[in-house]
Amino acid sequence: MSSRPVLGLTLGDPAGIGPEICLRAVMEEAILEKCVPVLFGDAGVLTRVEAEISRGASGGGKGNSRNPLRTLRAVRLAEFAQLKRISEPLLVDCEAIDATAIRPGKVSAACGKAGYFYIEQAIQAALDRKIDAVVTAPIHKEALRLAGVYHPGHTEIFTALTGAERSCMMLYSDKLTVSMVTTHVGYHEVPGRLSVERVLNVIELTAEAMRRMLRRAPRIGVCGLNPHAGEHGLFGQGEEEGFVEPAVSEARQRGIDATGPLVPDAAFTAGVRKGFDAFVCLYHDQGHIPFKMLAFDTGVNITLGLPIIRTSVDHGTAFDIAWQGKADPTSLFSAMQVASELAAGNLKG
Amino acid sequence: MSSRPVLGLTLGDPAGIGPEICLRAVMEEAILEKCVPVLFGDAGVLTRVEAEISRGASGGGKGNSRNPLRTLRAVRLAEFAQLKRISEPLLVDCEAIDATAIRPGKVSAACGKAGYFYIEQAIQAALDRKIDAVVTAPIHKEALRLAGVYHPGHTEIFTALTGAERSCMMLYSDKLTVSMVTTHVGYHEVPGRLSVERVLNVIELTAEAMRRMLRRAPRIGVCGLNPHAGEHGLFGQGEEEGFVEPAVSEARQRGIDATGPLVPDAAFTAGVRKGFDAFVCLYHDQGHIPFKMLAFDTGVNITLGLPIIRTSVDHGTAFDIAWQGKADPTSLFSAMQVASELAAGNLKG
Repeated sequence: MSSRPVLGLTLGDPAGIGPEICLRAVMEEAILEKCVPVLFGDAGVLTRVEAEISRGASGGGKGNSRNPLRTLRAVRLAEFAQLKRISEPLLVDCEAIDATAIRPGKVSAACGKAGYFYIEQAIQAALDRKIDAVVTAPIHKEALRLAGVYHPGHTEIFTALTGAERSCMMLYSDKLTVSMVTTHVGYHEVPGRLSVERVLNVIELTAEAMRRMLRRAPRIGVCGLNPHAGEHGLFGQGEEEGFVEPAVSEARQRGIDATGPLVPDAAFTAGVRKGFDAFVCLYHDQGHIPFKMLAFDTGVNITLGLPIIRTSVDHGTAFDIAWQGKADPTSLFSAMQVASELAAGNLKG
Repeated sequence: MSSRPVLGLTLGDPAGIGPEICLRAVMEEAILEKCVPVLFGDAGVLTRVEAEISRGASGGGKGNSRNPLRTLRAVRLAEFAQLKRISEPLLVDCEAIDATAIRPGKVSAACGKAGYFYIEQAIQAALDRKIDAVVTAPIHKEALRLAGVYHPGHTEIFTALTGAERSCMMLYSDKLTVSMVTTHVGYHEVPGRLSVERVLNVIELTAEAMRRMLRRAPRIGVCGLNPHAGEHGLFGQGEEEGFVEPAVSEARQRGIDATGPLVPDAAFTAGVRKGFDAFVCLYHDQGHIPFKMLAFDTGVNITLGLPIIRTSVDHGTAFDIAWQGKADPTSLFSAMQVASELAAGNLKG
């Protein structure tokens, strides 16, 4: 039993679908065989969400035959700090919000603040090695901003709070895997953020993560920036020659099977795709457009380069269906699966 | 018979796969039932290509049982100028290049010049209403440049030579259709080229073309520029509020069923895609990445807004397999099919 990795699950924005999908995770036998989930959230929130869903289901729909909160052990933060060894599912009650004041599906500063607090606590637990990985449910950027948190997303929060020197977002699925050189920045800011060092960092981080997952040397494709990858200087400012080519060349010198710059609109066709295990993309939509086409709602978001393991669902707070029991936990289960694999690789390596 | 549209086919770069796929078109009964193809090229080039392919096939492979050049009527330019009515397949021998000097699969100024000359002649024939549409085989940009032609592609050549005031590239397929607000420009140039007028023009051109093809009011989706379509000003310079929203709003006032700005990485997922007949994309790869994933080598490239009808194959010169009889004519056949439909709509409308 003790070989199962301990995964911290952050509830995300309490007004979204995060709490209910986290509850689904602690009820799923297949999940509990592979890991020990530790929820970072509020007991009050989960109790209200569970009650709302049961109430909705009692009208004739399918309700939960059992309430997971009856058996889930809850500990307060002070008690969690004293825990030496975790071997059973747990709820770390962060007492971060008054659950009775939450309006499901609404943006609020209080929910933004609570969602951020769960993340802080989980990161600290991971840095303290009390848990083996953090898996995050979705937060809401506007709620975060209302709470005074200006990071555009989880990736940036984890990078800042762990003091990581280099990190990047990877979207992983069995159909396509992409890593991003730039992420949550405006379209026009991308060229100014490219450098040989940054492209090389993302190639290295991607190769390292894929090696751990595949247990062999991965083949990494690196996209160009401009139409037709610049077509030998015809389009663009020479970003391919200036940043991509030298980074690919240096990566190859370091023993990585990297290829590029690839023509972006050809890279993701079925024929080219099968030649690579992962792609390095220069901007958000270059990677997100093909990824979401192939792995919508089933992909896993991984932050590479951190001193801890962090994966995430690949969807948002889905406020329109929050607290109704309709949310699909597939992406969370995938994120837990990948975190478990990475943690297992970690323990071995 | 006279109701079949007359389609001018330009051979493209003589050293590429254009000549052989054009030969395939004049041999295909299903094609000849629907249109009258008129090839703009060189008799010498086609004779050499046909001989090369037959020679390669005589080693045991499958050769053409018949040589289409034996029955295809060839006319010189002066003779073509005198023709009043075209009702049979034709080769307009432009005598633009010494065929014996061509090296298949090699970039050359002579081939660039010849490919451009075929286009000029076909455009003039279309402007003179001797043919109903122009369908183009692939040219090679570097060969064009060596020949002193600095247009980055067919779209720009056709726009310039027909004096079109507004035009745009559309990629059409039965799986996805996308139009481009900007096309062959560097990544960094895109924001500076956006304007309400330009976005509105592309929405209108796209809606008009789709109405002609579908014979009903089309649903047009318009993408944003930034990650998450800017997420309410969080990313970017407000391109969504500045250019996309006003253009969509004005298009709706003019009776077009337009929606946007759409979040780019969600727009092309199966669920969202089915809600639209065509998408307006702000830059080359925003449209080309999803299009090539879904319709690789089977799509049709259409230039909208011209005084003539022009469609094209959706692939390049494929120099690596040129003159070997291996090229797949599917995209050319699709381009001819779409040109025929557009021409038929034109005759009716």
